[in-house]
Amino acid sequence: MSAPVGIIMGSTSDWPTMKAAAEILDELEVGYKTAIVSAHRTPDRLWEYGTSAVERGLKVIVAGAGGAAHLPGMMASKTRLPVIGVPVQTKALGGVDSLHSIVQMPRGYPVATMAIGGAANAGLMAAAILAVSDDALATRLEAWRAALSASIPERPE
Amino acid sequence: MSAPVGIIMGSTSDWPTMKAAAEILDELEVGYKTAIVSAHRTPDRLWEYGTSAVERGLKVIVAGAGGAAHLPGMMASKTRLPVIGVPVQTKALGGVDSLHSIVQMPRGYPVATMAIGGAANAGLMAAAILAVSDDALATRLEAWRAALSASIPERPE
Amino acid sequence: MSAPVGIIMGSTSDWPTMKAAAEILDELEVGYKTAIVSAHRTPDRLWEYGTSAVERGLKVIVAGAGGAAHLPGMMASKTRLPVIGVPVQTKALGGVDSLHSIVQMPRGYPVATMAIGGAANAGLMAAAILAVSDDALATRLEAWRAALSASIPERPE
Amino acid sequence: MSAPVGIIMGSTSDWPTMKAAAEILDELEVGYKTAIVSAHRTPDRLWEYGTSAVERGLKVIVAGAGGAAHLPGMMASKTRLPVIGVPVQTKALGGVDSLHSIVQMPRGYPVATMAIGGAANAGLMAAAILAVSDDALATRLEAWRAALSASIPERPE
Amino acid sequence: MSAPVGIIMGSTSDWPTMKAAAEILDELEVGYKTAIVSAHRTPDRLWEYGTSAVERGLKVIVAGAGGAAHLPGMMASKTRLPVIGVPVQTKALGGVDSLHSIVQMPRGYPVATMAIGGAANAGLMAAAILAVSDDALATRLEAWRAALSASIPERPE
Amino acid sequence: MSAPVGIIMGSTSDWPTMKAAAEILDELEVGYKTAIVSAHRTPDRLWEYGTSAVERGLKVIVAGAGGAAHLPGMMASKTRLPVIGVPVQTKALGGVDSLHSIVQMPRGYPVATMAIGGAANAGLMAAAILAVSDDALATRLEAWRAALSASIPERPE
Amino acid sequence: MSAPVGIIMGSTSDWPTMKAAAEILDELEVGYKTAIVSAHRTPDRLWEYGTSAVERGLKVIVAGAGGAAHLPGMMASKTRLPVIGVPVQTKALGGVDSLHSIVQMPRGYPVATMAIGGAANAGLMAAAILAVSDDALATRLEAWRAALSASIPERPE
Amino acid sequence: MSAPVGIIMGSTSDWPTMKAAAEILDELEVGYKTAIVSAHRTPDRLWEYGTSAVERGLKVIVAGAGGAAHLPGMMASKTRLPVIGVPVQTKALGGVDSLHSIVQMPRGYPVATMAIGGAANAGLMAAAILAVSDDALATRLEAWRAALSASIPERPE
Repeated sequence: MSAPVGIIMGSTSDWPTMKAAAEILDELEVGYKTAIVSAHRTPDRLWEYGTSAVERGLKVIVAGAGGAAHLPGMMASKTRLPVIGVPVQTKALGGVDSLHSIVQMPRGYPVATMAIGGAANAGLMAAAILAVSDDALATRLEAWRAALSASIPERPE
Repeated sequence: MSAPVGIIMGSTSDWPTMKAAAEILDELEVGYKTAIVSAHRTPDRLWEYGTSAVERGLKVIVAGAGGAAHLPGMMASKTRLPVIGVPVQTKALGGVDSLHSIVQMPRGYPVATMAIGGAANAGLMAAAILAVSDDALATRLEAWRAALSASIPERPE
Repeated sequence: MSAPVGIIMGSTSDWPTMKAAAEILDELEVGYKTAIVSAHRTPDRLWEYGTSAVERGLKVIVAGAGGAAHLPGMMASKTRLPVIGVPVQTKALGGVDSLHSIVQMPRGYPVATMAIGGAANAGLMAAAILAVSDDALATRLEAWRAALSASIPERPE
Repeated sequence: MSAPVGIIMGSTSDWPTMKAAAEILDELEVGYKTAIVSAHRTPDRLWEYGTSAVERGLKVIVAGAGGAAHLPGMMASKTRLPVIGVPVQTKALGGVDSLHSIVQMPRGYPVATMAIGGAANAGLMAAAILAVSDDALATRLEAWRAALSASIPERPE
Repeated sequence: MSAPVGIIMGSTSDWPTMKAAAEILDELEVGYKTAIVSAHRTPDRLWEYGTSAVERGLKVIVAGAGGAAHLPGMMASKTRLPVIGVPVQTKALGGVDSLHSIVQMPRGYPVATMAIGGAANAGLMAAAILAVSDDALATRLEAWRAALSASIPERPE
Repeated sequence: MSAPVGIIMGSTSDWPTMKAAAEILDELEVGYKTAIVSAHRTPDRLWEYGTSAVERGLKVIVAGAGGAAHLPGMMASKTRLPVIGVPVQTKALGGVDSLHSIVQMPRGYPVATMAIGGAANAGLMAAAILAVSDDALATRLEAWRAALSASIPERPE
Repeated sequence: MSAPVGIIMGSTSDWPTMKAAAEILDELEVGYKTAIVSAHRTPDRLWEYGTSAVERGLKVIVAGAGGAAHLPGMMASKTRLPVIGVPVQTKALGGVDSLHSIVQMPRGYPVATMAIGGAANAGLMAAAILAVSDDALATRLEAWRAALSASIPERPE
Repeated sequence: MSAPVGIIMGSTSDWPTMKAAAEILDELEVGYKTAIVSAHRTPDRLWEYGTSAVERGLKVIVAGAGGAAHLPGMMASKTRLPVIGVPVQTKALGGVDSLHSIVQMPRGYPVATMAIGGAANAGLMAAAILAVSDDALATRLEAWRAALSASIPERPE
C-alpha cells in the first residue's frame, strides 16, 4: 500500500494524541507514514521533510504539536501540500497556546486546524482531501460516516 | 471554467471578509461559485447545498461565519467534501467565539479552520487541496508561493 | 402524564450532565421525553425533531452539547419553541467553547443559555416557561423555590 | 394592549442596546413596559419589581446589564417568572464580564442568557415563551421567522 | 469580645475557602461572626443583613461567593460599610467568572476584591481597615507581618 | 484640611483615569494628596512613601497602575495601611493584565482591587474605610449614596 | 561602529512597532542591523540568518512577529545566540496569539519574551545582555536608567 | 567555581519548578547561587539583592514567581543585569496571571519572560547570555543543543 499521508509530530509524547489519526486512516484503508519532526530540535529534518514531500509521494501532511506549536506552520512554509494541524492539549493553558500558534497563520501559508486534541478528525480530513480524486476512498469515507450516524442510540439512558 | 470551489457565508455582511478567498482563487485560475447559506435563517438551503454538493461538481467548500458560527460545521455534517472554515471577526469578542464554534468540532466532522478573518488562506487551502490531483494547479500554486516569497524586501525601512 | 418538555443531547456522554434537568422536572411533576439528537451525526433526526416538535405536543426544548455545540442553535433554527441550551463542560477549554457556540446566536434565533453544566437550571427554566400558563405548576415551582430558600442554614460550620 | 413583558435595565446608558428588544416586540404586537431598575443603585425598586411582577400581570422579564451585571440574576431570585438576560458590551472586557455575571447562575435561579448585546433575541425569546400558550402570537412569530428566512439573498455580491 | 467583622458566604460549600479569613482574624484577635447569606436563595436575609449591619455594630464585611457571585456586590448596595469580596474558585472556569462578577462593580458600589480563593487576605484587609482607628490592632498587624517576613528561609533547598 | 488619603499612580498618563478618585473625595470632603510613584522607575520613592505613610498621617492609599501593575502590591508590602488598587485599562489586553497583576496577591499582602478603570469606586472605598471611625463622613457617604439612588430615572427613554 | 544586534521582523508592517528597539539602541550607542526575515515566506533566509549569525559577529537577536509568530522561536532553533521576542499586537486577538506563540517555547529553545508591543524593552534587554561583558555600555545603560528615573515628576497634575 | 547566575524565587514552594534551571546550569558547568527573595514578604532583601548584584559578581538573574508575580519585575527595577522571569503555574488560572504580571513590563524595565513553568529554558537563556562573552561556554551550549537534537527518534512508536 502506498502512503499518501505523512503523520508527524514534535515529540514522542504527542503520540498518544496523534495515534487517533493513524487509527482512522487504518479504518479507511489509507496508507500513512509516521515520523518525529521537531521544528526546534530537528529543523533540518523539517526542512528535508517539507522539501522532499511531493517527490516522496506524499499528498497530505498531518502535523501535531503543543505549546508554541511551530511544526504545522513551518511545514506549511516548506511545501505546497495541504497541512492539517492538531493542537495538542497543554498542562498550563489547556491547549489555547497550541491553538493560537497553529491557527493564526499569516496570509500565504494556511494550516487546516483541527480541535484541540482532534487527531481523529485530522485523519478524516486527510481522507476527505484524498477522496476528492479517489472515488473508492470517497465511497469508504461515506460508509464510515454513515456507520457513525447509524451508531447513535435513540435515547441516553 | 468549471467551479470546483463553493464559497458560502451566512450573511452579506461576511462578504468583505470572504471576498479575499475569491480573489486568491481568481489569481490561481480556480473556478468558484459564491452563495449565501445561513445555517439558522436558511437551514433548508444548507441541507440542499450539502446534500447535492458532490453531484453538482463541487470538490471543496469554503465557509465563513461569525459568532455562534454553525455554518461550517453543519456543512461538514452534510457532505464528505473537505470544508474549510473562516471565523469572521466579531465586535464584542474579536472572533474568539467564531473560532471556538468552528474549530472545536466533534469526532467525525472536521472543519479545516483558518485564522480569524483568514479568508485569503481559505482560498489557498482550497487550491492546495485541488492541487493534490491537478498538476497544472500545483505548478500555479508553487509559482504564487514563490512570487510571495520573492516580494519580501531585505530591510524594513 | 403528557410530556411538554423535550430533553435532547448530542451524545450519551452528555447524560451525566443532562439528567439533572430530568430530575428537576420529576420533582416538579412536569413530563418530558429524552432523546439523543446529534447535530452533526444525525442531522436528519434533528431536522425531523425540530420540524415536528409543535405537532408532537412539545412546548419547550432543553438541549445540551459540548465543544462546537451546534445542537441548541440548530434546533432553534428549526422550531419556534423556546430552546434552552446547556453548555457541557469540556476537557481542554472547560466549556468556554461550548458556551460561546451556544450563547452567541445571531439575530432571529435565540437560545436561552444556562451556566456551563447548568442542566438543573435548564429544568427549572423549562418549568418557569410552562408555568406562565399553568397556575398549578406555578404553585409547585414557587413551593420548590421556597423549600430551597428554607434549606439554607444560618451558619457555615 | 396588555403588557406581558417587562424590559428593565440598570441604566439609561443600556437603552441603545436594549431598545432592540422593544422593537421586536412592537413588530410582533406584544405589549411591554420599560423601566430602569438598578440592582445596586435602586435595590428596593428591584425588590418591589420582582415581588409584584406576577400580580402586575407580567409574564416574562427581559433584563439587560453590563459589567458585574447583577440585575438579571437578582430579578430571577425575586420572581418565578422567566428572566431573560442580555449582557451589555463593556469597554474594557468586551462584555465577557457581563456574560459571566449573567450566565453562571447557581442551581435554583436560571437566567435565560442571550448573546452579548443580543437584545433583539431577548425580544424574540420573550415572544417564543408567550407563544407557548398564545396561538395567535405563535402564528405571528412563525411569520416573522419565515420573513427573515425569505429575506436572505442568494449571493453575496 | 465584640465582633466588628461579618464573614458571609453564599453556601456551606464556600466554608473550606472562607474559613481562612476566620483563622487570620483569630490570630489577630479580631472578633467576627459567620453567616450563610445567599444572594439568590435568601435575598431577604441579605437585605436584612445589609440594612442592619451598622446598627448591629459591624464595621467591615467579608463576603465570599463563586460563579455569578452576586453576594459581595449586592451587600455593597445595602450598606455603606466596606465590603471585601472573595472570588471562590469554580470547576469549569477556575474562578474567572467569580472574579468578573465581584470586581467589575459599577460606579457607586465598590467591592474590595481579593485574589481567587484569597480568603486569608480578606481577613488581613479587614484587620487593616479596623487598624486605621485601632492602634493596638495596628501593632498586632505589624507584628503579624513582621513574623511572616521573618519566617522566609534564605534558600529554597 | 488634613489629607488621610494618598492617591498614587505610576505615570502621569494614569491621571485621566485616576482623577475620578480625587473628584469623589472632593465631593465627600475628604482630604488627599496625589503623587507619582513608579514601582519600577522610582522604587526608592515607593520605599520611602510606604515606610513613612503612617507617620505622615495617611490612613488609606489608592494606587492605580496598568500592565505589569506592581505599584499597588509593592505598596501593600511596605505599609500596613489598606491599599486600594485600580487596574488601568491597557491597549493590547484591555486591562486584564493590570487586573491579574493587582488582584492575584499572595497571602499576607492584600490589595483591595477595583474594576478596570474603577477609580471613582476607589475614592468611595477609601471614604467607606475612613467612615468606619468618622461618623460625620459616614453621614456624608450615606447622603452621597442616597443621592445617587435618587438620581435614577423611572424609564429609559 | 560594529553591529552586535540583529533586529529582524516578519514584515515591513512590523516596523512601526519594532523601530522603538532601534531607537533605544541608538540612544545607547549600540550598533545594529535590521532585516526582514519571514519565517514562512522566506524560510531559507531565516535558515541562513540563523546559521551564520555567530560568524557575522552578531551577539543578540531581537525578533518581532504577530499572530502565529514563529520567527523568534525558529531563530532560537537555528542559533545559540540569545533571541529576544516581541509579540506584535494583532487586530482580532490583541496580541494574545503572538504572545502565546512566542513565549510558550519547549525545553531547549528559550525566547526572551517582551510585553506585547514592547520593542523598546527589547532594545534595552539587548543592551543589558551586551553590558554583561562591556563595562562602558553598562555605564551608559545605568545612566539611561537613572535619567528615566529622574524624569518622573512628583505629582500628576 | 564562580557563580555568575542568581536563581531566586518568592517561596520554597516554587523550588520544584525552579530547580530545573539549576539542573541545566549544572549540566553546562555554569555556577549559580539560589535564594528565596520574596517581593512582598522580604522587600528589603529584594532591595539589597538587586542593589548589590553587580558588585557581588552576578551577571544574570533568574527569577520565578506565581500569581501577582512581582519579583522578576521589581528585580529588573533594581539592577541593570538581565533578569529572566519564569511564570510559575497557578491553581486557579493556570499561570496566565503569573505570565501577565511578568511579561507586561513597562518601558525601561524588561524581563526576559519564559514559558509558564519554563525554568529549564531560563537556565539555557542564562547560559546563552553568558556565552556571548565566554567561548568555552558557547561551545558547551552548542554541544548541549546538538545532543538534544540528536536524541530525537525517527518515529513515535
